[in-house]
Amino acid sequence: RIDGDRLWDSLMEMAKIGPGIAGGNNRQTLTDEDAEGRALFQSWCEAAGMTMGVDAMGTMFATRAGEDSQALPVYVGSHLDTQPTGGKYDGVLGVLGALEAVRTMNDLGIKTKHPIVVTNWANEEGARFAPAMLASGVFAGVHDLDYAYGRKDLEGKSYGDELKRIGWQGSEEVGARKMHAYYELHIEQGPILEAEGKDIGVVTHCQGLWWLEFTLTGRAAHTGSTPMNMRVNAGLAMSRIFEMVQEVAMAAQPGAVGGVGQVTFSPNSRNVLPGSVVFTVDIRSPDQAKLDGMRAEIERRAPEICAELDVGCAVEPVGHFDPVTFAPELVENVRKAAERLGYSHLDIISGAGHDACWAAKVAPATMVMCPCVNGISHNEDEEISKEWATAGTDVLFHAVLETAEI
Amino acid sequence: RIDGDRLWDSLMEMAKIGPGIAGGNNRQTLTDEDAEGRALFQSWCEAAGMTMGVDAMGTMFATRAGEDSQALPVYVGSHLDTQPTGGKYDGVLGVLGALEAVRTMNDLGIKTKHPIVVTNWANEEGARFAPAMLASGVFAGVHDLDYAYGRKDLEGKSYGDELKRIGWQGSEEVGARKMHAYYELHIEQGPILEAEGKDIGVVTHCQGLWWLEFTLTGRAAHTGSTPMNMRVNAGLAMSRIFEMVQEVAMAAQPGAVGGVGQVTFSPNSRNVLPGSVVFTVDIRSPDQAKLDGMRAEIERRAPEICAELDVGCAVEPVGHFDPVTFAPELVENVRKAAERLGYSHLDIISGAGHDACWAAKVAPATMVMCPCVNGISHNEDEEISKEWATAGTDVLFHAVLETAEI
Ligand SMILES: NC(=O)NCCC(=O)O
Ligand SMILES: NC(=O)NCCC(=O)O
Repeated sequence: RIDGDRLWDSLMEMAKIGPGIAGGNNRQTLTDEDAEGRALFQSWCEAAGMTMGVDAMGTMFATRAGEDSQALPVYVGSHLDTQPTGGKYDGVLGVLGALEAVRTMNDLGIKTKHPIVVTNWANEEGARFAPAMLASGVFAGVHDLDYAYGRKDLEGKSYGDELKRIGWQGSEEVGARKMHAYYELHIEQGPILEAEGKDIGVVTHCQGLWWLEFTLTGRAAHTGSTPMNMRVNAGLAMSRIFEMVQEVAMAAQPGAVGGVGQVTFSPNSRNVLPGSVVFTVDIRSPDQAKLDGMRAEIERRAPEICAELDVGCAVEPVGHFDPVTFAPELVENVRKAAERLGYSHLDIISGAGHDACWAAKVAPATMVMCPCVNGISHNEDEEISKEWATAGTDVLFHAVLETAEI
Repeated sequence: RIDGDRLWDSLMEMAKIGPGIAGGNNRQTLTDEDAEGRALFQSWCEAAGMTMGVDAMGTMFATRAGEDSQALPVYVGSHLDTQPTGGKYDGVLGVLGALEAVRTMNDLGIKTKHPIVVTNWANEEGARFAPAMLASGVFAGVHDLDYAYGRKDLEGKSYGDELKRIGWQGSEEVGARKMHAYYELHIEQGPILEAEGKDIGVVTHCQGLWWLEFTLTGRAAHTGSTPMNMRVNAGLAMSRIFEMVQEVAMAAQPGAVGGVGQVTFSPNSRNVLPGSVVFTVDIRSPDQAKLDGMRAEIERRAPEICAELDVGCAVEPVGHFDPVTFAPELVENVRKAAERLGYSHLDIISGAGHDACWAAKVAPATMVMCPCVNGISHNEDEEISKEWATAGTDVLFHAVLETAEI
């Protein structure tokens, strides 16, 4: 069994870096706070006897040596970056849970055939730089390094420049490492496990996603002196697209979601009708045909909505992953570990995207989930109990040992 | 007749300060660019023999002495501040047109009984600090100085602090000056004069306005793992309010407008449903009952829309002026000047708010308007011809001389 108190202390220690405004965290990718969190994580890894490698995307790989010098490592991790108003556990639990598993191996003198690599993937959230899971995507060969370096935040700063600025551009070629397997512990970020009273989510699939970035072009004009019939109102077109996305998602129930989190009006002045409105539609489904069908319907109807208002409409996909089926033998390891340890469990589909989705392209991969209060995540109010964190990390520890071979 | 070339040269010279990104200007209130524009204007006023006074709101008053030391001055002006992506003429024409009138008086050796005060009102646009026409509002006793100093921009900087920072907090008590009359030349910012082929708008009224700032409270939550039926979607509520405002404005046709120019999503991340959405509804009508009726309907329907989605709804008025009727004798002076000079003219109602609306509370006031291309304003593409600017300034010059008494 892992040490739940030690795990919790580390979680609370990390949460001091980049505090939010309401009890959560703001430790966004490639900020000074991210750099500080990375340094703390590195010091803990070194204290646990691991050696750190960093790749050109800034992903951190802390290795605990294995017995067999030929055996590929088992990777275990998640991410330390957060949303602008994020929780203390989203991603962090997966990284520090992996670290806790290694600490426990050290305490118990456990040796494994395969090395263990505790991993902190860079820019998982995609909050500052779209798309999400950017570094694991490059690792898996989904994106080019150049594409990733060129991604820009809302202020126009690029991933490549910011990575250099915080001093975490490593020398390792991205994706050169080969994995024996990949495990990721994560909070559910949804309501199911808590509602069903289960300790552990055995994650069999992850739903797919499209991020569709719309740029609507209206005509910047005075809100007072521009008659209604002369307006080219991009804000109104946007609101009709929001309503349409809601309709499309509701028509696809169950097993689909759709919404909008980010909107930029320009020039964003109270007495100027927007010259342009940029926003990102987020649609997801575990069903590939449904997901692509939603995208097609939205891309068909949005230009019609805009045309009625004379508003220009451009769409660019800025994030995507297909639905994922995790490796059955690893999923079975997780299920058996939960049973062996006496934790209740439920097979679930991940609603959020995770680095495990990209790792699954290059290795057998799966995830362990633990409940979170009211399913709230991407919110500073995100909360879990120490017992949930402990159970999840126990299961992770046992499943990893199974694959890493004692 | 005024010197149209000299006027145009001054307009182009001022437009070099705070250039925009597409041929217009970004010289927002109390920025470094605003300070630079003020210094240039001051140097021109001094070169024209005027003496500068500055009040505690930062409004600039350049006085050309009159013959009668007892006579109250005729004030003539507008504003030099611009929208973030504003035009070169909105406001600027009114200030530099007034300066050109004084320069012409100097050239022709014209003496007036009443002093002439060329005025640059601070924060007319309300783009950086709501409400619009802030300094003239304090001047007219509509707002307290403390209220004005406490107004904040989107970054949280206050009017009072920024005024001190740029070095333009004057010592004069705001509103202590007494006016014999107030004239303001402005571009129409709407399409009517150009469409009707008229040189001059004789402005009889100005429509009234409400700015209603809505704060919608949803629940920040993951866009992927939060099921549709668990969402508290403030963005969706916002879009329904936009549509409702459009409906209310259309139902009030003709003689009313309604729209939204400024929106802030928080935390504004692609995979987070917004925890809060703040936006400002701008509604206007020359008909007081219609204006207040629109406000009442919007404030009744918005909470109903929000309640259906469980979204919290708070409304705060952040800008307001009643419809204004300008002083008939000054309006007649403008009309007669246009006729005497051989310019075609049309009686119009101002669609935008102007400092003249507040000046009208403390003195007889009116405006002169000239056409602008396609009615476009609050847009870097705002354009007028030198002929239009010249005609408007000629009429301003003659009307002012009538009131200032040669
Ligand atoms: N787990 C998580 O929040 N990942 C961010 C990517 C996504 O939006 O699903
Ligand atoms: N003229 C002008 O654009 N004034 C700003 C105040 C308003 O929005 O009407």
